[in-house]
Amino acid sequence: MVKSVTYTALPGLPLVEPGDDLGNIIAEGVRRAEIVVADGDIFVIAQKIVSKAENRYVDLNEIVPSAQALELAKTVGKDPRHIEVVLSESTEVVRFRQNVMIVAHRLGFVMANAGIDESNIAHDDGKARVLLLPKDPDASGEMLRQQLQRTFGVKIGVIINDSFGRPWRNGVVGVAIGSAGIPSLQSMIGAPDLFNRAMRVTEIAIADELAAAASLVMGQAAEGLPVVHIRGFHSEAAHSPASVLARPKAQDMFR
Amino acid sequence: MVKSVTYTALPGLPLVEPGDDLGNIIAEGVRRAEIVVADGDIFVIAQKIVSKAENRYVDLNEIVPSAQALELAKTVGKDPRHIEVVLSESTEVVRFRQNVMIVAHRLGFVMANAGIDESNIAHDDGKARVLLLPKDPDASGEMLRQQLQRTFGVKIGVIINDSFGRPWRNGVVGVAIGSAGIPSLQSMIGAPDLFNRAMRVTEIAIADELAAAASLVMGQAAEGLPVVHIRGFHSEAAHSPASVLARPKAQDMFR
Repeated sequence: MVKSVTYTALPGLPLVEPGDDLGNIIAEGVRRAEIVVADGDIFVIAQKIVSKAENRYVDLNEIVPSAQALELAKTVGKDPRHIEVVLSESTEVVRFRQNVMIVAHRLGFVMANAGIDESNIAHDDGKARVLLLPKDPDASGEMLRQQLQRTFGVKIGVIINDSFGRPWRNGVVGVAIGSAGIPSLQSMIGAPDLFNRAMRVTEIAIADELAAAASLVMGQAAEGLPVVHIRGFHSEAAHSPASVLARPKAQDMFR
Repeated sequence: MVKSVTYTALPGLPLVEPGDDLGNIIAEGVRRAEIVVADGDIFVIAQKIVSKAENRYVDLNEIVPSAQALELAKTVGKDPRHIEVVLSESTEVVRFRQNVMIVAHRLGFVMANAGIDESNIAHDDGKARVLLLPKDPDASGEMLRQQLQRTFGVKIGVIINDSFGRPWRNGVVGVAIGSAGIPSLQSMIGAPDLFNRAMRVTEIAIADELAAAASLVMGQAAEGLPVVHIRGFHSEAAHSPASVLARPKAQDMFR
């Protein structure tokens, strides 16, 4: 049997606004793409539209920067109110320099600017808004999974992805910040290799690999294809949320 | 138009031995899978089989460990000859502790053990062999690309992938260590976002996202599916080799 996995971007999705029924928007996109959803299919959803539907906007005009934010702003060179919002979402500033602030997000992910981005956010109403990550992306994924399962009558998986920079390598890649109904991290401990010896590699970041592939299909810029349908990926591994991908600080050699 | 990308593992490839004609092995696998190769298709090839075809084996019995290797072995706990081979492939030891040695490979990639793995390597002839990365993975990719282009009469891309651990996140993911005929890194500088403002994200590690997706289809363990065919990925960006993904030390905040 030939093993194939196909990633398809749902075309024609509308811009998402606070309070929108994202599950319904996705379901309509699926029908528009004439996809018949099957058991084991996975939907990858861009963080940005989940955050928008959940109204995770913060108006910078309502933010008073702390002394720490004002101090960091001198080096980083961003609006101190923006930095204040980043700090309020973070547990630790890991590195900072001009234009760069790497923090540990309260969700455990180490990332630039706590994932708070100003691109792809409309400024035409005169507000200075920034958009936070979903409050609990695994929970958001689980809610969307349940809604889509009710709609289509099959078992599916959901991933919420974002683009992260990395140490040591240029360029950003898609990663999973939330998931439901999939093995985000698969343990290979004890699995035999081709010559029946135990594998050295102990865990595979399945959700990050799916998220990266979906990110490519979404595109980054003006295309606006924030939902990707995956067909053909199967794993017998136990389901685990994306939060297990965050390495605890005590086990991390690089902060 | 619906945008889809499909990853298909070539079934039934033989184990690769030094001196094998890897391009021919892949071409036969393509015919076996009944794939009609088209312009723009990409093949992702596992590092291990490229290294094997290029006979990048080193016999540990011929290695005399240096003082540095003997010293590191006390902490790392590996065979000092193995550590000596890792050092000979590296320009810098970035971190080490028990069972872990993160180095800057001479190719510029920061990775565990300089990519020198003992899993999936036969020991049945009594030798203690380890397998190095290809000498020049971008060049290996380019040679395979040219051979496959001659065979199939179309323009294709090639990626050589490996699995890397990451700081801050659990689990390994597929990354590109060599490539040809694709934009490994796509610049988005100046590209407009949905609201016609310039993008913040400046570069996308296209080759790493393709490599990660292919890695999932290959599997890690006993399945042995080391070549993946990609259909449907298109980019107008300029081609660049995987070496551009290695961030120079002077630009890196994490070593």
